[in-house]
Amino acid sequence: METKTLLTDCPDAMGLISKITNICYKHQLNIIHNNEFVDHSHTRFFMRTELEGVFNDETFLFDLDRALPEGSYRRLVSSARKRIVIMVTKEAHCLGDILVKAFDGTLDVEIAAVVGNYDTLAGLTEKFDIPFHHVCHEGLSREAHEEKMLEAVKQYSPDYVVLAKYMRILTPNFVAQFPHQIINIHHSFLPAFIGAKPYLQAFDRGVKIIGATAHFVTNDLDEGPIITQNVINVDHNFSAGDMARSGRDVEKSVLSKALGLVLDDKVFVHGNRTVIL
Amino acid sequence: METKTLLTDCPDAMGLISKITNICYKHQLNIIHNNEFVDHSHTRFFMRTELEGVFNDETFLFDLDRALPEGSYRRLVSSARKRIVIMVTKEAHCLGDILVKAFDGTLDVEIAAVVGNYDTLAGLTEKFDIPFHHVCHEGLSREAHEEKMLEAVKQYSPDYVVLAKYMRILTPNFVAQFPHQIINIHHSFLPAFIGAKPYLQAFDRGVKIIGATAHFVTNDLDEGPIITQNVINVDHNFSAGDMARSGRDVEKSVLSKALGLVLDDKVFVHGNRTVIL
Amino acid sequence: METKTLLTDCPDAMGLISKITNICYKHQLNIIHNNEFVDHSHTRFFMRTELEGVFNDETFLFDLDRALPEGSYRRLVSSARKRIVIMVTKEAHCLGDILVKAFDGTLDVEIAAVVGNYDTLAGLTEKFDIPFHHVCHEGLSREAHEEKMLEAVKQYSPDYVVLAKYMRILTPNFVAQFPHQIINIHHSFLPAFIGAKPYLQAFDRGVKIIGATAHFVTNDLDEGPIITQNVINVDHNFSAGDMARSGRDVEKSVLSKALGLVLDDKVFVHGNRTVIL
Amino acid sequence: METKTLLTDCPDAMGLISKITNICYKHQLNIIHNNEFVDHSHTRFFMRTELEGVFNDETFLFDLDRALPEGSYRRLVSSARKRIVIMVTKEAHCLGDILVKAFDGTLDVEIAAVVGNYDTLAGLTEKFDIPFHHVCHEGLSREAHEEKMLEAVKQYSPDYVVLAKYMRILTPNFVAQFPHQIINIHHSFLPAFIGAKPYLQAFDRGVKIIGATAHFVTNDLDEGPIITQNVINVDHNFSAGDMARSGRDVEKSVLSKALGLVLDDKVFVHGNRTVIL
Repeated sequence: METKTLLTDCPDAMGLISKITNICYKHQLNIIHNNEFVDHSHTRFFMRTELEGVFNDETFLFDLDRALPEGSYRRLVSSARKRIVIMVTKEAHCLGDILVKAFDGTLDVEIAAVVGNYDTLAGLTEKFDIPFHHVCHEGLSREAHEEKMLEAVKQYSPDYVVLAKYMRILTPNFVAQFPHQIINIHHSFLPAFIGAKPYLQAFDRGVKIIGATAHFVTNDLDEGPIITQNVINVDHNFSAGDMARSGRDVEKSVLSKALGLVLDDKVFVHGNRTVIL
Repeated sequence: METKTLLTDCPDAMGLISKITNICYKHQLNIIHNNEFVDHSHTRFFMRTELEGVFNDETFLFDLDRALPEGSYRRLVSSARKRIVIMVTKEAHCLGDILVKAFDGTLDVEIAAVVGNYDTLAGLTEKFDIPFHHVCHEGLSREAHEEKMLEAVKQYSPDYVVLAKYMRILTPNFVAQFPHQIINIHHSFLPAFIGAKPYLQAFDRGVKIIGATAHFVTNDLDEGPIITQNVINVDHNFSAGDMARSGRDVEKSVLSKALGLVLDDKVFVHGNRTVIL
Repeated sequence: METKTLLTDCPDAMGLISKITNICYKHQLNIIHNNEFVDHSHTRFFMRTELEGVFNDETFLFDLDRALPEGSYRRLVSSARKRIVIMVTKEAHCLGDILVKAFDGTLDVEIAAVVGNYDTLAGLTEKFDIPFHHVCHEGLSREAHEEKMLEAVKQYSPDYVVLAKYMRILTPNFVAQFPHQIINIHHSFLPAFIGAKPYLQAFDRGVKIIGATAHFVTNDLDEGPIITQNVINVDHNFSAGDMARSGRDVEKSVLSKALGLVLDDKVFVHGNRTVIL
Repeated sequence: METKTLLTDCPDAMGLISKITNICYKHQLNIIHNNEFVDHSHTRFFMRTELEGVFNDETFLFDLDRALPEGSYRRLVSSARKRIVIMVTKEAHCLGDILVKAFDGTLDVEIAAVVGNYDTLAGLTEKFDIPFHHVCHEGLSREAHEEKMLEAVKQYSPDYVVLAKYMRILTPNFVAQFPHQIINIHHSFLPAFIGAKPYLQAFDRGVKIIGATAHFVTNDLDEGPIITQNVINVDHNFSAGDMARSGRDVEKSVLSKALGLVLDDKVFVHGNRTVIL
């Protein structure tokens, strides 16, 4: 007996749930969890089905492909542990949170390596017996530096790349290597305060709530599909620095939560939005 | 073309989703929304299916009944507007919120009447052209008073009875007339501060968060299945009276939200818990 | 014995708390609540002092003025009930909430009148025996219409004007008549989604949290000092219309909360920010 | 120039703020932040004053003591880093969070040691070069084991003892050694679900919100003064195990926040409640 997750993303049509679950039934696969969503405005159907049983992937997918309409996308994902590489600059809180959560099993993930443009976090990383690569950007063009970062990351063939407060903007070349596989934490409640220094922007605007946003990285800065967001209250007592300090907890919990959802294969990307089942 | 909601609550078995959605498909009923939940510890299956099409209720339910395992409970609910009676004592905020929401269409409900053991809220009720019944408890035994309340309520044959800060405890006789049809708002985060004067209890305990709980009424005081809860932050500046004042907004929004879920046929009662699909 | 609130807003200097509270002490005024805040980056001092005693306003303020540095602003506010005029378009929820809260005493305020550019809410307003003025904008230039709105509002000499989902933009002329006296509810978590149709913008961006912002109106659209904000979670199931419906509760509670803070003289405006004591 | 914090806790009387701030002024001490609170029901006055200047502690406190009423308690606290000992059992998340926050400076604290009744967390602790003491409880009476725990803790003369999911109940003897110096995290929204297995209790009750509570430890189990609380939403999809997993993030952030408030000398204990200034 094994557990796998079927992800279906296809044009909506009458009887889809029935057809798909019929095939599962026919293959003697038990449905542990099933969630579906229809975007009626785009007539698009999404379903996530956790299955238990003895899988014959080939015949199962063959039957599925015959039943699904044209333009369908489906994936049968094993429950094997996924591998990530984390990219960082200097701040420890997001990295530290993921390290501790991987250590104690809260996140079921293999952290293959941490890659930083500063070496500030080498010590913290190595405490957890994980290799740290320092790829210094000094004296290098943006492209040249990124090329070396990319090399450092790609050697581990990660399922996902996590930007845990990596403070440099990625070029389209880098992003294209990992379509919908790069998760970033932005330290504001997007789309408010896009770009640099969001806490300073928030302070200047006098907001009463600040937040953090985890999203997939696309070529449009801070415009990728949002996975999860959260907020905290602030008031006039908070300087921009206080906001940054207070924001750390929400940043790390938002990033970890998004990572958990992605690792559990719960996140569908649908245009510039996510469907989380 | 009509819209109806199928509610299925049955022992779990392999292929249930497939069987039920097959029958919908066969009857040419389009699934607008579908949500299901399996309680694996009790091997119980819950599904809520919004359907669109031309219904032949009799043959559809006949087919369903043949497919569902023994011990199943299923209901096909029309989308007709439901009728409620609201019971009150003196406080206006929950009643006022429901009156305004019914008035402006936020809640799609017919308020047949308001029944109070004081006449304090007669004026507010009548502003909205809804009959108010004052059933004074003075000089009456609990049973005698409740008998008269029951009479006032039952003449309207309500689908649900809403206790909008009705401050008297109902007897088993009253409760038995409306199984899982009475919704109460308790002004605490249950199960903390069961019983009378929860804000005073909260103040005395020095909590930093207070809340409100909407639940179905059963014979066990404040122990019925919880529908929804919410909280707000408080601090040492709050007297018990301040907590009560601040709690009003959360009480009314929790009660309205629970009522909306119930009116949309989204709430299954499952032992002492609710499943909300 | 009377209660008054002293509001001090002045350049920071050593010994200010001592000097001010000394003068209160000398005048035998008991401090019920005292809160102060120093904005160190602008070296500006804010203090709100609730006093109880027998007031001789003239000598008390004379003593204060001698003690406070140049560039000080101070006000001694009586606890008399304040008067507001509410401006609306078609949506009932914010107006309804303020009407019910004024009715049951949650908000201690006199609603002098409601003025609308549609007559949709005349019925609701008049249920509460409050005059409704319909100032139709059809066939009128923006300026001509606003002139008539202004006239309708000014005849009541309100302390504050509340825009309870008034969907037209005010001109600088209108705003200048009520400096820091106009409170608006914007149906987004500002500064995200400035301008029209914020829920549609939020839907298009795929955010996971939506919010509402109450702010003072200045000449910069949606850029005035923020008084309070709140948010709710949404997900892929929410259409733009669902967001709008769900947003109503947070809009009304944010507006009512901001209004309560303003009526209690707790809000200082400080550049484009508020200090709430 | 130095920074110190004056904490005043005394019977309320007219002119207290004036008297205390006068003395600060006279001693040429600049007030950076000042917060006060009067509990009118107990006529008790609390003030926290952050001061900057050249301190002569002796003469300053002498002047204060002459000005304050009988029954006053005052303390002038230096801004030196405080020392804690952390007690644990097996769960890593709260310990891990404090270790990372001390490592990156988010919490300004010296972790002198970690003491556990299991050795599960020795590895994690030692990664951060902090001594771990394993005091096994097997084969020992509760008293004998606690005696050895106490010994292990006391050798470090900690300012505070942090119970980071230490799953054994402390005896009055232990508690008496550290009055209002032991901070515990309880994995429920107290006073709901006192005692063991709160997540199982929460699951059984069918609550829609779970929480965590940080409090000072007194002799009454889970009844000590609450410092901070927070909550998260759950639904029917959550098993008791899921609640426990999801609760970890709120547990650790609540404990860290409470610890930060205590380390900043912001928490007054007032009967069974806290005043946080």
